[in-house]
Amino acid sequence: MKISELAIQLEVAYHDKDFIVSAINTLVDAKENEISFFDNKRYINDLKSTSAKAVFIAQEFVEFLPKGTGAIICENPYLSMAKATAYFAKPLIRKSEKTAIDASIMIGENVHIGNGVVIGKNVTILDGAYIGEDVSIGEGTLIHPNVTLYNDTVIGKACILHAGAVIGSDGFGYAHTKMGEHIKIHHSGYVVLEDKVEIGANSAIDRAVFSTTLIKSGTKIDNLVQIGHNCEIGAQSIIVSQAGVSGSTTLGQNVVMGGQSATAGHLKIGDFATIAARGGVTKSIEGGKVYSGFPLMLHSHWLKQQAKIAKFFKIK
Amino acid sequence: MKISELAIQLEVAYHDKDFIVSAINTLVDAKENEISFFDNKRYINDLKSTSAKAVFIAQEFVEFLPKGTGAIICENPYLSMAKATAYFAKPLIRKSEKTAIDASIMIGENVHIGNGVVIGKNVTILDGAYIGEDVSIGEGTLIHPNVTLYNDTVIGKACILHAGAVIGSDGFGYAHTKMGEHIKIHHSGYVVLEDKVEIGANSAIDRAVFSTTLIKSGTKIDNLVQIGHNCEIGAQSIIVSQAGVSGSTTLGQNVVMGGQSATAGHLKIGDFATIAARGGVTKSIEGGKVYSGFPLMLHSHWLKQQAKIAKFFKIK
Amino acid sequence: MKISELAIQLEVAYHDKDFIVSAINTLVDAKENEISFFDNKRYINDLKSTSAKAVFIAQEFVEFLPKGTGAIICENPYLSMAKATAYFAKPLIRKSEKTAIDASIMIGENVHIGNGVVIGKNVTILDGAYIGEDVSIGEGTLIHPNVTLYNDTVIGKACILHAGAVIGSDGFGYAHTKMGEHIKIHHSGYVVLEDKVEIGANSAIDRAVFSTTLIKSGTKIDNLVQIGHNCEIGAQSIIVSQAGVSGSTTLGQNVVMGGQSATAGHLKIGDFATIAARGGVTKSIEGGKVYSGFPLMLHSHWLKQQAKIAKFFKIK
Repeated sequence: MKISELAIQLEVAYHDKDFIVSAINTLVDAKENEISFFDNKRYINDLKSTSAKAVFIAQEFVEFLPKGTGAIICENPYLSMAKATAYFAKPLIRKSEKTAIDASIMIGENVHIGNGVVIGKNVTILDGAYIGEDVSIGEGTLIHPNVTLYNDTVIGKACILHAGAVIGSDGFGYAHTKMGEHIKIHHSGYVVLEDKVEIGANSAIDRAVFSTTLIKSGTKIDNLVQIGHNCEIGAQSIIVSQAGVSGSTTLGQNVVMGGQSATAGHLKIGDFATIAARGGVTKSIEGGKVYSGFPLMLHSHWLKQQAKIAKFFKIK
Repeated sequence: MKISELAIQLEVAYHDKDFIVSAINTLVDAKENEISFFDNKRYINDLKSTSAKAVFIAQEFVEFLPKGTGAIICENPYLSMAKATAYFAKPLIRKSEKTAIDASIMIGENVHIGNGVVIGKNVTILDGAYIGEDVSIGEGTLIHPNVTLYNDTVIGKACILHAGAVIGSDGFGYAHTKMGEHIKIHHSGYVVLEDKVEIGANSAIDRAVFSTTLIKSGTKIDNLVQIGHNCEIGAQSIIVSQAGVSGSTTLGQNVVMGGQSATAGHLKIGDFATIAARGGVTKSIEGGKVYSGFPLMLHSHWLKQQAKIAKFFKIK
Repeated sequence: MKISELAIQLEVAYHDKDFIVSAINTLVDAKENEISFFDNKRYINDLKSTSAKAVFIAQEFVEFLPKGTGAIICENPYLSMAKATAYFAKPLIRKSEKTAIDASIMIGENVHIGNGVVIGKNVTILDGAYIGEDVSIGEGTLIHPNVTLYNDTVIGKACILHAGAVIGSDGFGYAHTKMGEHIKIHHSGYVVLEDKVEIGANSAIDRAVFSTTLIKSGTKIDNLVQIGHNCEIGAQSIIVSQAGVSGSTTLGQNVVMGGQSATAGHLKIGDFATIAARGGVTKSIEGGKVYSGFPLMLHSHWLKQQAKIAKFFKIK
C-alpha cells in the first residue's frame, strides 16, 4: 500500500515523497520502507535517529524528524498507528509456502498443520493441537492435546507444551478514541520459545506488537500463567501457577516468580531475583534478592513489617 | 411437567390449582406458567408483586403471596428450586431446528456446528472450535481454534474470540443440604456478547442462571479472565488479564479493571470507574474515579496509606 | 532396567546387589523392587523404616539405611532421582490393553479415546475431548468439549467436566543443577476424581509425582482454578474461581476456598474451614473457622485489623 493511499484512508496529512509501505515498526527498529509513530516525548531521541521512512506525528514535533523521514501529520499518532495496523496484518490463512515436516514425527488425529510449517525430528503432537501458518517446531518437542500455536510461532528443541496452552494470541493493545472506543492494534510480531522450555496447562503467551515475545532457554512456566506482549523471560526462569507478567517487561536469567505474583509493564527484573508468591512488582528491581508484598519490598522486610503490623494492631 | 408431579418428585407440598410448568425464573421475571422461589426477606416486595404461577416458599411467608400465585411449601425453598432445575434443563443435544449459515463463512476442520445455529456473513471459525446448539454468531466475527461456545450463546458482529476461550459454561451455583452436599442449579440462561467484543485466550464467561450474562458492545477482555453468571459488563470496558468478576455484578460503560483485580458478587460499578491492578471490590462504587487496594479505596488514598505504613513501620 | 545400568547412566555409585528396578517411589511407599531417595533430614525415620530396595543417598547418611536396602551414593540425591524418573516414565502411547466402553455412551466427533480406556454407562463426551491411555470414566459423567484427560486419569460417577479443563497434566516439579538448570521430574502418578465432582472451565489439576492427586466426592471446583500435584481435596469442598492450591496440600471435607485465594504447599486445612476471597494460607490451619488476609488470620480479626489500619492512617 502506498503511503499516500494510507494517508487518505486514515484521513491524515502526508505531503512528502510517496513510497510503498512495507510494515509498521518502532522508531528504533523501523528500516527501509517501514513507517513508525511518535506519541511520547520520552522517545524524542529515538525520533531524531529513526530510520523509518515516515512517522505518524503531531505537527509540533515535525521539526525533530531526521532528514529523509516523512511526516504523517495527525492529531493522535498512536490512534492513527493503531488504525494503520489493520492494513498490514498478515493473512490468517496463507497459500504460498511449503511445509517441511520430518518423517519421524508422531502426530495425533485432528491436528491442524498450517502452510509453511517446519517440524524437526522426533516431534510429538497430540490430538486437537492447532499449528498455525509458518510455525516452526524444534527437534524432540512434545505438544499435548488441544494446544494452539498461532501463526508464526517459533518453538525450540525439547520443549513441552501442556494441554490447552495458547502461544501467540494477540496482545492486549488498543488505542482509544475521544468517544472511548478501543481501536485494536493488529499485532504483527510473534512468540519465540527457545530450547527446553516447558509451558503449563492453559497458560497464555501473547505475540508481540511488532517484534517478539521471547521465552529463553530452559525456562519453566506452570499452569494458568499469563505472559504479555513483548516480554522477554530470561533463561532458566521459573514462573509458578497463576502468575502474570505484563507487557514489555524483561526478566533476567534464573528469575523465580511465585504463585499468583505479577509485574506491571515495561519493567526490568534482574538476574536471580525471586518474587515470592503474591508479590506485585511495580518498579524495576535488581537481581539476586528475594522480594515480596504489594507494594513490593525485600521479603525479609515484608516478614518484619507484617509482624509489626500484627503486633501494633493486635486484635484481642 | 405438571406442578403436581414436580411436587411429588421433590417431596414438597402443593395444594393449589394444577398446571404445566414451563420454566423456573426469578420472582421479578417469572410470567405465565413459570414458577419461582422465595428464600430471602429482602425480596419480600418482589414476592408480593410476582407474576409467577407458583412459588417455592416456607409456610410462614405464604400470606404474602399475591392472588393467583400458588404455594409450593417447603422447608428450604432455595434447595427445592435447585432440585427442580434438573427437570427443566434444556437437552444438551437438540434435533428440531435448522441451521442458517451464510455461504461466505470460512470454516476450519473439526469444527462442530450444532443444530439451530445461525452464522452471519464473513465469519471465520478456526479448527477445533465447538459451536453448540442454537448459537448465533454475527457478521465478521473471528473465532480462533479450540474455542467452546456452549448452547444458546449469542455472539454479535465483528467480535474476536481467542483460542481456548469458553463462553457459556455453567455458572458456579449450588444449593446446600443439611449434610453439606451441594445440589447443582442447572443454568437455563445464556451468554450474550454484543458487537466488537474481544475475549482473550482461555478466558471463561459463565451462562446466567435464568436470564443472560451480558457483555456489551466494544468491551475488550484479556486472557484468563473469569466473568461469573448473570454479570453485565458495560460497553467499551477493559478487563485486564487474570481479573475476575463475581456473579450478578454490573459494570457501567468504559470501566477499567486492572490485572488480577476482582469484585465480589451483586455489586454495581459506575461508568468510567477504574480499578487498579489487584484491586478488590467488595462494595458498590461510583463511577469516574480510580480505586485500588483490598479493602478497596481511592487509588490516591491507597498510595498515601501505603507510604504512611512504610514510614511508620520502617524496617532498618 | 537394572540398578547397575541406571547407576552407570546417572554416573552414581552403586555397589550392592543388582536387581531390576520396577519404579521410583517415596521412602514410605516404596516396596519390592522400587527405589527411593533421601534428601531431607526431616524424613530420617522414613529412611530407617523404608522398604525400598535401594535409595539415592549422600555418603554421610548411608549408615541409617535399613538392612536389605542398597545405597545409590550421590552428591545430590534429589537431582539423581529427577534424572532417574526419565527412565521410568510410562509411554505416552500404549498398545497392549483393550478398551471397555459401554454401548450407552454418547460421544461427539473428533474425540480421542486412548488404549485401555474404560467408560461406564450413560457417559457423555462432547467434541474435541481427549481421553488418554488407561483412563477410566464412571457412569453418568458429562465431559464438555475440548477437555483433556491425560493418561491414567480416573474419573468417578456423575462428574461434570467443563470445556477446556485439563486433568492430569504434569506437576511443576524439577530438581536444579549447580548451573541453575532445571531437571524435569517425570510424574508417574495420576489424578483421581471421585463421584459427583464438578470441574470448571479451563481449570487445571496436576498429576501426582508418584501416587495420586485426589479430589474427593461431591467437591465442586470453579473456572480457572489450579490444583497442584499430590493435593488431596476433601469431600464436598467448594473452590471458587482463580483459586490455587499448591502441591501436597490436604484440604479436609467441606472446605471453602474463595475466589483468588491460595495455599502454599504441604499444608493441612481442617474440615469446614472457610478461606475468604484472596486469603493466602501459609501455615496449616484448623477447621471450622473462617479465615482471610495475607498473612492469613481469622476473618473477624482481619475485618477489625483493616478498620484499625484505616482509622490510624486516615487520609484526609
